[in-house]
Amino acid sequence: MAYDASALPDVSGLTVGIIGGTGDQGRGLAYRFARAGQTVLIGSRSAERAEEAAREIAALPGVAAATVAGAGNEEVARRSDVVIVAVPWDGHAATVAALAGPLAGKIVVDCVNPLGFDKQGPYALTVEEGSAVQQAAALLPESRVCAAFNHVSAPLLADPEIDRIQLDVLVCTEDRDAAAVVAALAARIPGMRGIYAGRLRNAHQIEAFTANLIAINKRYKAHAGIRVTDL
Amino acid sequence: MAYDASALPDVSGLTVGIIGGTGDQGRGLAYRFARAGQTVLIGSRSAERAEEAAREIAALPGVAAATVAGAGNEEVARRSDVVIVAVPWDGHAATVAALAGPLAGKIVVDCVNPLGFDKQGPYALTVEEGSAVQQAAALLPESRVCAAFNHVSAPLLADPEIDRIQLDVLVCTEDRDAAAVVAALAARIPGMRGIYAGRLRNAHQIEAFTANLIAINKRYKAHAGIRVTDL
Repeated sequence: MAYDASALPDVSGLTVGIIGGTGDQGRGLAYRFARAGQTVLIGSRSAERAEEAAREIAALPGVAAATVAGAGNEEVARRSDVVIVAVPWDGHAATVAALAGPLAGKIVVDCVNPLGFDKQGPYALTVEEGSAVQQAAALLPESRVCAAFNHVSAPLLADPEIDRIQLDVLVCTEDRDAAAVVAALAARIPGMRGIYAGRLRNAHQIEAFTANLIAINKRYKAHAGIRVTDL
Repeated sequence: MAYDASALPDVSGLTVGIIGGTGDQGRGLAYRFARAGQTVLIGSRSAERAEEAAREIAALPGVAAATVAGAGNEEVARRSDVVIVAVPWDGHAATVAALAGPLAGKIVVDCVNPLGFDKQGPYALTVEEGSAVQQAAALLPESRVCAAFNHVSAPLLADPEIDRIQLDVLVCTEDRDAAAVVAALAARIPGMRGIYAGRLRNAHQIEAFTANLIAINKRYKAHAGIRVTDL
């Protein structure tokens, strides 16, 4: 039962859709998955902007053009096997709710961190459902909802000179098989591991911990992530 | 501003008191600090039980007998430079409030994690003040209150065969100088680093993250901690 990447399922044939794929986090994840050879669909409210982002990502070092395309969010949700939600917290509930139909039966990975900012820096917002991912789960009763990729630094993802992203992706979900798929997807990105980290009710602190990572980045001039030790 | 252990203050002369030093976490931390050559005072409601624990720790491999003593909580608070609060969450408020006098002016390090357990495992409890450490800060207005050592696995601390504890101690506080002292104390334990991780209002998620570590430990048969990457 120790962490063993070789025991994870083969996910190389899955299409990964990214809702909000034109934002920094979504774009960075799209780049890394495309660079790993995964078929990636960039989603946006505007199909044109999604196509433009896809063309830009396809032109980045290490990406075969055939692996990235762009489309409207609904089409991306429909055509993908695994769908990552990477939208701003402000539009989270509305965007997710509108996609409940095409996301039915799919693995949905929420990487949204509900944070506020004031003069003292970032802090965790209170979410009625407990966390962004629990809000998604409430809005998507037919989907297999996970939290993951909450702590991945967008600047690191975007930097073509960086080969390996040295951090662990924490996966929270009630669905053990979905956790394995998401962990396997994380492990497609060199340097990353995907680690099961508990049920959805324990996702809040993973989302909120991003505020701590921002504080760490500020103090130490870093792009911090976390690695789980003793695994 | 990158992490640099050599820039941390010299804390080798400080006396570390541990309130709740007869519990697993407190005893483990006492052992590691004593083994690092720090003078350690074990505190308990019962001075006798504290003295007994001190004798047991002094007999463990790597500890010079002169570095560990036991006493009642109040005496430990009075005689120590830095006081770690390692009591069960149940008695946290009462224990801390009773020590407000002797803890005035001192650095107080709260490592308590308010967790509940049910059939589905551990989960974070709601704390009126936001977190255990914020409760301590409210009860100890004259102290320099930090959260730290929340994620340190007691079985690893207690195992004399383990030389290095490979993890980072996240320090939350409003007091920059106190953060440096606590980070330096963490760095006295081989393998550990002390990392400033934000203000007290962002300590809740660090305490709550212990629930995730417990889930990780269960799934992977590990004693998980975390290491901050890119530092």
